[in-house]
Amino acid sequence: MSTTDRTLTSSGFYVSQEAPIRSDNPVPTPKAAPPDILRCASMEIVVTDLARSRDFYVNVLDLVVTEEDEDTVYLRTLEEFIHHNIVLRKGPVAAIAAFSFRVRSPEELDKAVAFYTELGCRVERRTQGFTKGFGDSVRVEDPLGFPYEFFYDVEHVERLAWRYDLYTPGALARLDHFNQVTPDVPRATKFMQDLGFRVTEDIQDDEGTVYAAWMRRKPTVHDTAMTGGDGPRMHHVAFSTHEKHNILSVCDKLGALRMSDCIERGPGRHGVSNAFYLYLRDPDGHRVEIYTQDYYTGDPDNPVVTWDVHDNQRRDWWGNPVVPSWYTDASLVLDLDGNPQPVVARTEASELTATIGADGFSYTRSGDAPDELPSWKQGEYKLGHQL
Amino acid sequence: MSTTDRTLTSSGFYVSQEAPIRSDNPVPTPKAAPPDILRCASMEIVVTDLARSRDFYVNVLDLVVTEEDEDTVYLRTLEEFIHHNIVLRKGPVAAIAAFSFRVRSPEELDKAVAFYTELGCRVERRTQGFTKGFGDSVRVEDPLGFPYEFFYDVEHVERLAWRYDLYTPGALARLDHFNQVTPDVPRATKFMQDLGFRVTEDIQDDEGTVYAAWMRRKPTVHDTAMTGGDGPRMHHVAFSTHEKHNILSVCDKLGALRMSDCIERGPGRHGVSNAFYLYLRDPDGHRVEIYTQDYYTGDPDNPVVTWDVHDNQRRDWWGNPVVPSWYTDASLVLDLDGNPQPVVARTEASELTATIGADGFSYTRSGDAPDELPSWKQGEYKLGHQL
Amino acid sequence: MSTTDRTLTSSGFYVSQEAPIRSDNPVPTPKAAPPDILRCASMEIVVTDLARSRDFYVNVLDLVVTEEDEDTVYLRTLEEFIHHNIVLRKGPVAAIAAFSFRVRSPEELDKAVAFYTELGCRVERRTQGFTKGFGDSVRVEDPLGFPYEFFYDVEHVERLAWRYDLYTPGALARLDHFNQVTPDVPRATKFMQDLGFRVTEDIQDDEGTVYAAWMRRKPTVHDTAMTGGDGPRMHHVAFSTHEKHNILSVCDKLGALRMSDCIERGPGRHGVSNAFYLYLRDPDGHRVEIYTQDYYTGDPDNPVVTWDVHDNQRRDWWGNPVVPSWYTDASLVLDLDGNPQPVVARTEASELTATIGADGFSYTRSGDAPDELPSWKQGEYKLGHQL
Amino acid sequence: MSTTDRTLTSSGFYVSQEAPIRSDNPVPTPKAAPPDILRCASMEIVVTDLARSRDFYVNVLDLVVTEEDEDTVYLRTLEEFIHHNIVLRKGPVAAIAAFSFRVRSPEELDKAVAFYTELGCRVERRTQGFTKGFGDSVRVEDPLGFPYEFFYDVEHVERLAWRYDLYTPGALARLDHFNQVTPDVPRATKFMQDLGFRVTEDIQDDEGTVYAAWMRRKPTVHDTAMTGGDGPRMHHVAFSTHEKHNILSVCDKLGALRMSDCIERGPGRHGVSNAFYLYLRDPDGHRVEIYTQDYYTGDPDNPVVTWDVHDNQRRDWWGNPVVPSWYTDASLVLDLDGNPQPVVARTEASELTATIGADGFSYTRSGDAPDELPSWKQGEYKLGHQL
Repeated sequence: MSTTDRTLTSSGFYVSQEAPIRSDNPVPTPKAAPPDILRCASMEIVVTDLARSRDFYVNVLDLVVTEEDEDTVYLRTLEEFIHHNIVLRKGPVAAIAAFSFRVRSPEELDKAVAFYTELGCRVERRTQGFTKGFGDSVRVEDPLGFPYEFFYDVEHVERLAWRYDLYTPGALARLDHFNQVTPDVPRATKFMQDLGFRVTEDIQDDEGTVYAAWMRRKPTVHDTAMTGGDGPRMHHVAFSTHEKHNILSVCDKLGALRMSDCIERGPGRHGVSNAFYLYLRDPDGHRVEIYTQDYYTGDPDNPVVTWDVHDNQRRDWWGNPVVPSWYTDASLVLDLDGNPQPVVARTEASELTATIGADGFSYTRSGDAPDELPSWKQGEYKLGHQL
Repeated sequence: MSTTDRTLTSSGFYVSQEAPIRSDNPVPTPKAAPPDILRCASMEIVVTDLARSRDFYVNVLDLVVTEEDEDTVYLRTLEEFIHHNIVLRKGPVAAIAAFSFRVRSPEELDKAVAFYTELGCRVERRTQGFTKGFGDSVRVEDPLGFPYEFFYDVEHVERLAWRYDLYTPGALARLDHFNQVTPDVPRATKFMQDLGFRVTEDIQDDEGTVYAAWMRRKPTVHDTAMTGGDGPRMHHVAFSTHEKHNILSVCDKLGALRMSDCIERGPGRHGVSNAFYLYLRDPDGHRVEIYTQDYYTGDPDNPVVTWDVHDNQRRDWWGNPVVPSWYTDASLVLDLDGNPQPVVARTEASELTATIGADGFSYTRSGDAPDELPSWKQGEYKLGHQL
Repeated sequence: MSTTDRTLTSSGFYVSQEAPIRSDNPVPTPKAAPPDILRCASMEIVVTDLARSRDFYVNVLDLVVTEEDEDTVYLRTLEEFIHHNIVLRKGPVAAIAAFSFRVRSPEELDKAVAFYTELGCRVERRTQGFTKGFGDSVRVEDPLGFPYEFFYDVEHVERLAWRYDLYTPGALARLDHFNQVTPDVPRATKFMQDLGFRVTEDIQDDEGTVYAAWMRRKPTVHDTAMTGGDGPRMHHVAFSTHEKHNILSVCDKLGALRMSDCIERGPGRHGVSNAFYLYLRDPDGHRVEIYTQDYYTGDPDNPVVTWDVHDNQRRDWWGNPVVPSWYTDASLVLDLDGNPQPVVARTEASELTATIGADGFSYTRSGDAPDELPSWKQGEYKLGHQL
Repeated sequence: MSTTDRTLTSSGFYVSQEAPIRSDNPVPTPKAAPPDILRCASMEIVVTDLARSRDFYVNVLDLVVTEEDEDTVYLRTLEEFIHHNIVLRKGPVAAIAAFSFRVRSPEELDKAVAFYTELGCRVERRTQGFTKGFGDSVRVEDPLGFPYEFFYDVEHVERLAWRYDLYTPGALARLDHFNQVTPDVPRATKFMQDLGFRVTEDIQDDEGTVYAAWMRRKPTVHDTAMTGGDGPRMHHVAFSTHEKHNILSVCDKLGALRMSDCIERGPGRHGVSNAFYLYLRDPDGHRVEIYTQDYYTGDPDNPVVTWDVHDNQRRDWWGNPVVPSWYTDASLVLDLDGNPQPVVARTEASELTATIGADGFSYTRSGDAPDELPSWKQGEYKLGHQL
């Protein structure tokens, strides 16, 4: 990614205009036009104990059950009017079966087929859909190894936004975004640009290594993000709430249920996206984010925000440390036969190593020396120093 | 508007799919394509006492001053990255000089010129812009009598979203929408559909009279709305906050400043839009809404919500009455010479009369008789009954 | 009440040090010491349709059922550790059977007996208590005509403060206060001082007429208040929430249940007490307040706040009008035989008349002329001016 | 402390009735009555760089300056009506000069003198006070080594509770409590009971070791707490806000100011007290807590809550780990000559060692084995396991 024409802001990060991402090993740009994607819309999650996972998503997170059968539970958020945002499907291995995106019209599915076929990807189209509630759909194994799904036809269900009698303190309003782990972030981001996504933020170092990038179709900070690491894997799926106290309520409830150990990180304020966040781990270890209040990004010249990987406010604006598992753990993804995709190791620098531990460093103020962290911060950022 | 194929929801309103609005007296649909509008972006407000208005918008509402001179103050919200969202301009008559919309590219301005020229509207284009901070712009007197502006080129300024040291308890994050008063709502809405807007909600009665309609470009409930009444006039301009307590803080501050009489209506929860709201009147009587938390509307098949005009939760979900001035008062709008447009009276039924007063009625539960309002509500809804 | 030694604050009200209230018609001060009261603790409410009232308090307001039988439901708030804060008891006439206060020790009951016996009041003591869950208790018909109860012995129940899995968006944390209607406020307040209460705020006019007074035992703004009007009647019972959004959630839920017409006034910010509030009417018309965030008053020299009755921010800091029913309606109270106490008319000036209507006036800024209300306020404050 | 008659609650902690604390090495109980203390009211903090500390407390935390001179700044919270809650005094060594408590009347100072004199403590009384704004005051070096101050006479200042024009997003409403570090918690707690304090919560292990205890005069969870560690030292001083978002705003602002490294721990939900919290370190390393929403404790039979030291929700209800510095760091306290008190090492088990590190363990669910922590938690709770 280019480091030219960046402007340093008064908040410590840089802004620039989006440019085509350069990759040493690019996925070729298809001649076929990409499908016009509206938004991330649903994820199909394979779980090993359906009853336990249902309890987590329905009784703890309070998602609404649209429909269910012996092997599958279809869930939605309170403001959703399409059939579901989450499919829990019983399976032998915890993994992600589909990242589903809604497109603007039925005709866009033909474009999806052409786009991925030209790239040599495996493509499967089912007129009756792959899940209940969604009609004609296309699933692909994309060039990065992820199972992407595209659909337009859906069964409409009631948007329950006004049904405040159904709200709980931690009510989930919308599916907000996905986050994917991939070894080569510029390669992945460039491919996503070809698919029609716009980059909103990223994390880099002075050498130009890109550690993560965020990209959107709908005008929020992201519909998905690419996180550098061993992949393809699914980092997390995120739901949004109306306010910050809703997220705190999720934590309070987990404490009351003596399930607080499913809190992995947060709550906190992101630097990237400026949103308030919480990361949970579901019974299979799939990571779920609860998220609220990022900003409008819909103008074509929306400034791209670039964070220095050593800025310890980039991942948490309050400087609270990122737990190592958040960098290392992620969910397997499935191919179209339902087998886990092999995981390829990232070869570039790791954000974990670059920022935490004996050789890493993070600063609060640009220019601070590595050892200027207050003593109470060193235990968190210098893993050998704790006691 | 069609009353067929409506589905009654469990919340008491109807949903349907958007259809072209029928009007007995339509503005012709131009053959020229409309400009691709991104969002409502700025309003130019003529004020009679600039110092007093500046104090209101800057010291009370805490908008950020981008730039100012003797006759003009340019203001923006904390999450904005374009030069301004509000222009306060000193003038002899309190009025609205421009409803400004940002378009997707410079080329869209040519489309705007062609679109309005074909309609016989007065059109003026200034390469250097009509205000500081905005470049090449087109202003028109639209077929409904409103001064609309279109622009793409802007001066970028810093998005202050992360500058929490600048936030106040009632911090305004974004310009959210406009609201226009016009005598014939279906005529206006049909014209807005031709301009590329999508309808999200409306208020009707059983006879098909349309009292108001909401329409959007960006995927929120609206970029503008058409309110039935004597027009063309400007009903209000709305800013959004992150959370509901921010809006309550605005009220608290107005109380502390002994300016509580600039609160006209609210705070409350809207039925339409499901947002939390507050209406203020600025020193010239221009109405400003503070607004938060409507819902995503970006899917093409987003259900249109239709409210019964007699449902007393349509304007306030809690059933609190609408103060009559909210229906009757609005700001003049200017032609391109700066003269107020003449106001044409609405001839169809008035929402105020239909719902409040001796002959009007409003119900909490559909089917309740007009006199089933509890005694404590009758004073508010039956204007002769108060004491 | 004395008007000397008042200090005008920058917020528009006065502060002074509490002094003994003077009354033209005082209840004699007993020689017997009053009982040491801890706090308002419970109210026994007679309801005409127990199932409907239970639904309101349990399913709408989400109070916790400690115990119930065919004729009675015992309810408590989430932070309570004594058996109940509300008793709903089925009866022929909607009324209040007891305002219950907890005293510091069992011995205080002897003091209560002596105190009220000396005043010639009817006193009844039951070693087994008048309700389940409370032991040895004293009930009296007090000199003002109210059924007061005193108790110490209680059955402890679990304080559910940490049980966030039971919280709903409008969770009620504590019983906060009562409010009583009585014709002669200084007489009532002077009696309450004799009972050991401390005055925290009041509303007066320039002639020294006292319209209402607030008084406390626990260090909040009140355990009870005296509102001038025809009495003895019960004006309201109030529960507190943790935050303001909890109160907004109650409104939202009432809208969703199509029960918004049980909202009588608010939500809003009080001038008096500085708390955020909402007033509801239960199925029998008993008034319930939801309340949050007043201030600490526990120092002996805590300043008494005095509001001018014509200050339109005294009852609502945002200047929103008080609905007339809020002044006129209240619940009957019962004598110890269960018969309604006769209601005596207030002869002094009425706050309603003094502030609203043809002859009343209210100002936003002291010194504003009566007709300086903005036009949008006149409809609310001048009952003949609405249209 | 007694382990009998405890009741296990559904939230995982125990409740019991308060009993006199037993200590192997008690401070003798004076025959003289203790002073009747109202509340913790002020702390005098010695800072080494007054300008920098002033900036922190005034410009970052937004406390109100009542008065200041070259060497001293007097600060108060928005709801306070006495002269100050904090004195910043310039000095050579960062330390605490006084923990100040307000008593119920001037006469209580005589009791304080007698009480501490009988204990052989150094006692100093100054009729003109030790600081501006406070009159006749008594300072002592208490038997635990802490500099305690008692006063009644104060200069009244305006309670700014209604001055919402002065509120910032993180507005501090009240001084809530102190927290003291002392080697022998039962000894200290027993002494505080003699001084008239009531115990509300504590942390123990199965062997009866007491790690910390909370105690109150005003009816909140505490006016001060005793934390086991090397002492006498000051652990923290705490201010309360109205709502949780106010605390999050403090974090957001610190991020914006690039001062996030003064956040030591949190924000989070306490198990003990059920309050929402944040711990900061001021420029000298003095710890400041921002706190909101504990519960009413004013009934004499208020249940004492006892937490198991191995319950990892005791200090943070969400199970987030306590940073080691929070256990080890604290501020020196001064004797009446202004010299630091020598620090005596705690000899009993350390909470840090008992719960974190190779030999410690913490459970989410009672009965969970030490190694049942999820992998993502082990890095936090097992200090050698991070990578």
